[in-house]
Amino acid sequence: MSEFSRDVVGIGNAIVDIIARCDDEFLKIRELSKGHMELIDATAADALYDAMGPAVEISGGSAANTCAGVASLGGKAGFIGRVADDQFGRVFNHDMRAIGVIYETPAANDGAPTARSLILVTGDGERTMSTFLGASVELGEAELDSAMIAGAAVTYLEGYLFDPPKAQAAFHEAARMAAEAEREVALSLSDAFCVERHRSAFRALIQGGVELLFANEEEIIALYEVSSFEEAVAAVRSECRIAALTRGGSGSVVVTPDGLVEIPVEPVEKVVDTTGAGDLYAAGFLYGHAKGLDVETCGKLGSLAAAEIIGHLGARPEASLAQLAVRKGLIS
Amino acid sequence: MSEFSRDVVGIGNAIVDIIARCDDEFLKIRELSKGHMELIDATAADALYDAMGPAVEISGGSAANTCAGVASLGGKAGFIGRVADDQFGRVFNHDMRAIGVIYETPAANDGAPTARSLILVTGDGERTMSTFLGASVELGEAELDSAMIAGAAVTYLEGYLFDPPKAQAAFHEAARMAAEAEREVALSLSDAFCVERHRSAFRALIQGGVELLFANEEEIIALYEVSSFEEAVAAVRSECRIAALTRGGSGSVVVTPDGLVEIPVEPVEKVVDTTGAGDLYAAGFLYGHAKGLDVETCGKLGSLAAAEIIGHLGARPEASLAQLAVRKGLIS
Repeated sequence: MSEFSRDVVGIGNAIVDIIARCDDEFLKIRELSKGHMELIDATAADALYDAMGPAVEISGGSAANTCAGVASLGGKAGFIGRVADDQFGRVFNHDMRAIGVIYETPAANDGAPTARSLILVTGDGERTMSTFLGASVELGEAELDSAMIAGAAVTYLEGYLFDPPKAQAAFHEAARMAAEAEREVALSLSDAFCVERHRSAFRALIQGGVELLFANEEEIIALYEVSSFEEAVAAVRSECRIAALTRGGSGSVVVTPDGLVEIPVEPVEKVVDTTGAGDLYAAGFLYGHAKGLDVETCGKLGSLAAAEIIGHLGARPEASLAQLAVRKGLIS
Repeated sequence: MSEFSRDVVGIGNAIVDIIARCDDEFLKIRELSKGHMELIDATAADALYDAMGPAVEISGGSAANTCAGVASLGGKAGFIGRVADDQFGRVFNHDMRAIGVIYETPAANDGAPTARSLILVTGDGERTMSTFLGASVELGEAELDSAMIAGAAVTYLEGYLFDPPKAQAAFHEAARMAAEAEREVALSLSDAFCVERHRSAFRALIQGGVELLFANEEEIIALYEVSSFEEAVAAVRSECRIAALTRGGSGSVVVTPDGLVEIPVEPVEKVVDTTGAGDLYAAGFLYGHAKGLDVETCGKLGSLAAAEIIGHLGARPEASLAQLAVRKGLIS
């Protein structure tokens, strides 16, 4: 059906998540900003890890999680991101391939170890992330697979990549390659703090040709420096074709040229861990979008994938998202 | 209260579990014996890992899981086992210390990497394990901490240690050290295949002074080469003081000098993954035993800890077992 060899190619940090539970006091003592991601160096990562409780290790990385979600839905996904040739690198590599994502970025033989994100999950299911970018920080234009980008319906870029300078340059180059091949570029804003750090660069990229923007309420408000969600919606309408804006427990709003489409949340029994909720929403939406489905169905696929991920620890699907979506009648 | 510096010191393989879901067909094609553990070499481990689905990594190891369970119940536990100085070794080390287990065995700087067990979980929650012992295989008498053993109420040995020859020698030496310090020795039979491989050595050790034996129905039947659970119970009564025999969904039977005590299972909503059920039963029982609780309460603590572990992926407690036990009125 599709003229593309891939539905989505994601470019992002290649990270293994180290997930432990903690109470709010633990975050407060360490001045960690609940619900956000901050970058830390190797020394700080070691110190925080020492203080954390027993953990589980699960492959992560924002765009990587999205690609895993697209594959779990039955889509064809590719991923570009940089690990080191170490045990965590092999874990990341395995998990991408095992779920069916094409992943061929060579592992680095020297330098920093594979990136890890220390994720603290509080009793309310909220996650707070401290990330050591390690080998991921060196992702650059050399790692971009131009054939993969030219062959994918959508090139999906995670906002976190704006932090490492080499990656930011690669980011722009990837967007250029996609545009040259007349492919769509999608962007996730990733984190409100990340938006604060790189607001003007994000704005420039969006104005330069992002067709599909993913953000949560806090991020889109931060991007436009406005005081309400409604103002942010008005601002984003003038800048990109489709914006899928998530609002946590209140569902999501998709901004389209024809108006707003409200998508309800998919109910979950218990929110265990919100890690990856936004990434998986993007996975569902992108899958639907690449398959040419209507915006409402895209949004519902996003809600469904997000609901699966917040019901368990970690940001990679435990169940087949394709089966869940078929059962819901969203795809056949 | 206690004259001991530790309630339990466990000696076992120091392993990181790599857990993935699969269907029965996957096991059949690879001739993996469902519900059992088999040892594999590095090449076979790589091949099986390549074939497995997306996984999560969680610290494991039978006696190590038991020690983690004792600590989660509020007991004082120590562990002796050998990792390599690599990423998985640091994960194992972290998780032991983070849950409160004293763990000071030096990590090996050269030789094989940290042991890993590839665990396949089928839809019924049953786990099938293929273990590459790596650095664990070199555990020997040099690693035994005689002061820790002499200071612990119970020295707990996992039967899996009978496989590596150096460890089997260390096993006997640890039992000797415990006996010399007039401490109790507890043994887990671990796996029916392991019993088949080392039946006479197990029998000799038990006759030589194991006060507390843990086994499941299949293992105790294999040990005595009998055809029924009742015959196995009769045989074990004549050889060791207390035997705690688990029967899966039918609960457990504790064989004591005064007769049999039947312990019901603790009901669980859904069996997600049976990995660690026996290890955590032993944890509950050993904790109660070290605290001088009656056999029935020891068994109920075992059932409670096992129920927690089979409700989620992995063999390390996600919830505080102490809180669960207090809520049940088993401890105060």
